[in-house]
Amino acid sequence: MAFAAHRARRDDVSRLSLNQATIRRACFKDALSIARAAGIESVGLWREPVEEIGLDAAAAALRSSGLRCSSLCRGGFFTATEALERRRAIEDNKRAIHTVATLAAAAAAGSAAVLVLVAGGLPPDSRDLVGARSRVVDAIAELLPTAADAGVTLAVEPLHPMYAADRAVVNTLGQALDIAEHFPAAEVGVVVDAFHVWWDPSVSAQIARAGAGGRIASFQVSDWLTPIATDPLLSRGLMGDGHIDFQSLVVPVAMAGYEGDVEVEIFNQEIWDADPLQVARRVVALYAAEVAL
Amino acid sequence: MAFAAHRARRDDVSRLSLNQATIRRACFKDALSIARAAGIESVGLWREPVEEIGLDAAAAALRSSGLRCSSLCRGGFFTATEALERRRAIEDNKRAIHTVATLAAAAAAGSAAVLVLVAGGLPPDSRDLVGARSRVVDAIAELLPTAADAGVTLAVEPLHPMYAADRAVVNTLGQALDIAEHFPAAEVGVVVDAFHVWWDPSVSAQIARAGAGGRIASFQVSDWLTPIATDPLLSRGLMGDGHIDFQSLVVPVAMAGYEGDVEVEIFNQEIWDADPLQVARRVVALYAAEVAL
Repeated sequence: MAFAAHRARRDDVSRLSLNQATIRRACFKDALSIARAAGIESVGLWREPVEEIGLDAAAAALRSSGLRCSSLCRGGFFTATEALERRRAIEDNKRAIHTVATLAAAAAAGSAAVLVLVAGGLPPDSRDLVGARSRVVDAIAELLPTAADAGVTLAVEPLHPMYAADRAVVNTLGQALDIAEHFPAAEVGVVVDAFHVWWDPSVSAQIARAGAGGRIASFQVSDWLTPIATDPLLSRGLMGDGHIDFQSLVVPVAMAGYEGDVEVEIFNQEIWDADPLQVARRVVALYAAEVAL
Repeated sequence: MAFAAHRARRDDVSRLSLNQATIRRACFKDALSIARAAGIESVGLWREPVEEIGLDAAAAALRSSGLRCSSLCRGGFFTATEALERRRAIEDNKRAIHTVATLAAAAAAGSAAVLVLVAGGLPPDSRDLVGARSRVVDAIAELLPTAADAGVTLAVEPLHPMYAADRAVVNTLGQALDIAEHFPAAEVGVVVDAFHVWWDPSVSAQIARAGAGGRIASFQVSDWLTPIATDPLLSRGLMGDGHIDFQSLVVPVAMAGYEGDVEVEIFNQEIWDADPLQVARRVVALYAAEVAL
């Protein structure tokens, strides 16, 4: 009987969110239709396709879709040393906060007003990792009032250490929590992304810490493929195609009290080249098999 | 005056060791001659070129070269689940311990009898990272008496997390120390390799911990290049060609009390294709500029 109950739960895809980068060929409206057609109830959104149709049109489409929204990608890129560039980054993040607030308000109940923050890499010709990391904290402090006013949670995403130089100087869940804990949990959380954190010997402990502090703002899944793709940004695979034991992350995240959506976010040229509806259906099947609790 | 003294020290290459993988085109004897010709006093050795001329001949050549030996690469690859394969790995590591003891005894005073251990990746079709990691500890326990008898230090090398699936399940200096600290410091230490650890937000603290425990058995340097090479194993560069601030590691390692050789170990097709003596001379110049204290 216990087994039967367990199996039933393993088929539950109600918390699955399709990050629209996974089917990036589809425009904003098509992505919503495809999610629905595949039986998915939630979507993770990106700013570029929203800007393509305009925020009002995007919000209206989202409202009429009945889908939840689980996050918006993305803000961040906070590491510039030059004042004008820093100012531009802050202003751009304020616009992103407004975007996520608008979309989350338009989306179905249970949506999360979460803006994913990618820190940014070392500035050109700089090797000052400590300095770059401290500027991430400074930038979040500057955005805090805007996020609080808008009811938006800023979610610091640790990226895999292989991106430390050129993409994100925040590289472990522990480090992301060290940053987030400077601020109230309602305004600043973290992203737990399986691809980025699966290798970390302390990941279970850090997930527990994140949960205890109410800091898990987003949980994303995709698999670690080998060999690493020539463009390492596109090295993610569908769950089950790589090396990650998803239950080793899903269970600690559940134990930590996270009850939000679970986003499938895959950057992979082969998947991008495939039919988006077929991809969405494979995502559902593989989520049920590998990720659902 | 202080400045002049500082500059003088910065030119000191007496602790530089040329890892022979950096000039892998050269056979064992040529590698020794090239090191000497470039004014280098120490070499890091690899088993394959030693086996090519035989251990006795290698030891004799090393003795007559007057060079120190700073480490032997490498043992490890401990993660197999299958009994026969595990047994083969243990026996192979015992042979490597014998090799390093023989070479270190033949080399000049100040040599280190250090065997670098690369853990090995996930076994085929396994996603059990925790299990693979625990087998590394088991294997070291099994090798301990052999290492102690031979006076050899086993040096657990944490590899960059991008190699976690397919090459080494030990991925941070903290994790390597957690493993090493099961055993006496004379027999089990760690490798601090700039390429593998530079990104780690806790690296300074872990270097201090390693030093306090007398666990720094080897210190290696090479730079982190972007974009990552198509074969990520060959993505290392000469110091100054990438993103690492070497002084951010050299200073903590010195403060931690490490006074041994500093190995330059670079896997890079372009460097391998270049003239080995030219490479050795560039290594000396860049070591003096970027690494020497």
